[in-house]
Amino acid sequence: MSTGNNDFSHLKEEIISSERVFDGKVIKVDHSKVGLPDGGSADREIVYHKGAVALVAVEGEEMFFVRQYRVATDDFLLEIPAGKIEVGEAPDETAVKELKEEIGGVSEKLRKIYGFYVSPGFSNEYVHLYEAENMVIDEQSLDEDEFLDIVKIKLSDLTTRLEDGAFQDAKTVIAVQYVIAKFNL
Amino acid sequence: MSTGNNDFSHLKEEIISSERVFDGKVIKVDHSKVGLPDGGSADREIVYHKGAVALVAVEGEEMFFVRQYRVATDDFLLEIPAGKIEVGEAPDETAVKELKEEIGGVSEKLRKIYGFYVSPGFSNEYVHLYEAENMVIDEQSLDEDEFLDIVKIKLSDLTTRLEDGAFQDAKTVIAVQYVIAKFNL
Repeated sequence: MSTGNNDFSHLKEEIISSERVFDGKVIKVDHSKVGLPDGGSADREIVYHKGAVALVAVEGEEMFFVRQYRVATDDFLLEIPAGKIEVGEAPDETAVKELKEEIGGVSEKLRKIYGFYVSPGFSNEYVHLYEAENMVIDEQSLDEDEFLDIVKIKLSDLTTRLEDGAFQDAKTVIAVQYVIAKFNL
Repeated sequence: MSTGNNDFSHLKEEIISSERVFDGKVIKVDHSKVGLPDGGSADREIVYHKGAVALVAVEGEEMFFVRQYRVATDDFLLEIPAGKIEVGEAPDETAVKELKEEIGGVSEKLRKIYGFYVSPGFSNEYVHLYEAENMVIDEQSLDEDEFLDIVKIKLSDLTTRLEDGAFQDAKTVIAVQYVIAKFNL
């Protein structure tokens, strides 16, 4: 049970040793041994990632999505616009850039609504979710190794599409739930 | 723009070659080269994971969470009960087991509400989210290398806690938004 205060030291693990088993461009993977609160030890496999931004983009009565192939899942997923944070980039800058690249969106103000780890059991990837306020649509300008279709869905269809399982990734489910609540759909 | 049909082959990538760079107990990591739709090629770093279950657990006027230390994020996170799917286990079985282990919950029926990839850009980890219907609380029975505190939060506090950033991981944000919508909070 909760101790009712903010001292969680009885839950803490300490890294005893770490081996960097993969040093990629997108992820770094460590195989680590940790000391447990009871004095025992355990293995941990940890994926380090620079984080990402994702965007709630609504224009008029429609919400913007992108359809893209994901080799990791071998599927064509319907996701909200998103992108990895590059080295030296602030999340706010990535958000402006990705909105323009993926759907041609230009927003008067990008407001951060949530931030969350996507899989804290093994990864530190953190997603900053923004809402694009007063967005207008200009031209898409994709990266050279990026292939995606823009898909617009009517706000009035979002609840049904969510229940039917049209949205198959966490950030997109969160964004759609947010829009449904905001617009009382 | 969407072609308006279900042929997405113009977006498809094909794996040309793969190297297994890490073969862990929880994750396997491949460094792969893919062929792109325009004939070019690109590197992809892919993390394979067996998937997980997570649980919306409400009893009376309270929702159940667990506070645990996550070495990947170096933080004490407030998450819904969850756990990895073991080899040979069906997600439904994992859900029954994790509900009992983590919070001592026994449910008349576990109903699947959503399923989602947590980070399809690099991983195939898929989370099955269940709602525990008519749950009663018995004894917690944690795994030996698992240390967590049970935290109960009043349904009437969920909206404020969500807006204040108390929930810092994707599955938990989805679950809390679901409960807020279901109970009209």
